[in-house]
Amino acid sequence: MTDPSDHCHLALDPTVRDTARQRLASIRGHVEGIVRMLERDDVYCVDVLRQLKAVDGALEKVGDTVLRSHLHHHVTSARERGDADLIVDELMEIMKYR
Amino acid sequence: MTDPSDHCHLALDPTVRDTARQRLASIRGHVEGIVRMLERDDVYCVDVLRQLKAVDGALEKVGDTVLRSHLHHHVTSARERGDADLIVDELMEIMKYR
Amino acid sequence: MTDPSDHCHLALDPTVRDTARQRLASIRGHVEGIVRMLERDDVYCVDVLRQLKAVDGALEKVGDTVLRSHLHHHVTSARERGDADLIVDELMEIMKYR
Amino acid sequence: MTDPSDHCHLALDPTVRDTARQRLASIRGHVEGIVRMLERDDVYCVDVLRQLKAVDGALEKVGDTVLRSHLHHHVTSARERGDADLIVDELMEIMKYR
Repeated sequence: MTDPSDHCHLALDPTVRDTARQRLASIRGHVEGIVRMLERDDVYCVDVLRQLKAVDGALEKVGDTVLRSHLHHHVTSARERGDADLIVDELMEIMKYR
Repeated sequence: MTDPSDHCHLALDPTVRDTARQRLASIRGHVEGIVRMLERDDVYCVDVLRQLKAVDGALEKVGDTVLRSHLHHHVTSARERGDADLIVDELMEIMKYR
Repeated sequence: MTDPSDHCHLALDPTVRDTARQRLASIRGHVEGIVRMLERDDVYCVDVLRQLKAVDGALEKVGDTVLRSHLHHHVTSARERGDADLIVDELMEIMKYR
Repeated sequence: MTDPSDHCHLALDPTVRDTARQRLASIRGHVEGIVRMLERDDVYCVDVLRQLKAVDGALEKVGDTVLRSHLHHHVTSARERGDADLIVDELMEIMKYR
């Protein structure tokens, strides 16, 4: 039996949370840079696409860090905790996009 | 013969540039929201991953809009302009990540 | 402590294995169809790319089915079994490509 | 004005076609190998996922080769030929999946 309320206790590891927050603050700065870049009327399409690709790669790294932590701290212990079905459904939904 | 200097004239279409800038400003706000979310010590991993996925989808839409404009305005006319080799190399490099 | 030899016991679920085998047999037929398609000297690039995309989608579905079964039967019980580190490393390596 | 019938003349480059056919014949063999692998009742999920990943990478290489050829021979000359709108629509539809 899965119980969604169990999830209240599955908090993101504090160290990973700090790392993720710092990297996302840096990604926000990167996105701001692209917004400014798009104010120039001679900006070249491919330069924009390259910057978007860089942001995408940075976001993916943050996602990998959070995912690894989730697998390590919560997914591998789901059977013991009794919420395996819910944990697997959530994972499959999230990983579909990758 | 391709001439990189030709690229100075290949500016992103103004309407697409406006749309992209507005959407990226909104994406920046979304990223700020995730940074704040990561300040809560009970934040759940999967909720972070869902937000990252939403940002990723929004970035992809911006990229699609810029790419479509680039294909329409610059790639399909590359042979006439004489920079087809360079245009194709750039595209293949950018599309590899998708 | 992780022990790679534990993995000898982590067999793919028989029902999922049957489904995966049948779908892959069908995918093999699809690939054969593309090989024959490529014998025609008037074949259009985009038609080939569409077929490759269809095969890719079919492979992804097989992968999702195997991944879900692995998460359900092996990953959620890794902590009990004692091979959580190895299980997580394997998953991160495999999911990087998606 | 775009004219779909123009596409009858946009055949895949013969050299690229030969390369793609040979690689796909090899990919078909790889898929057959996975089908046989799935007949063993002790096959490990992650080994299957690794093989699917390898096939996916090989398909992507074939796709890249065909796409590069299409960009080089057909897309960059679309404006001259007069089917730019159709060519761009086709490309955006195909590239969405990547």
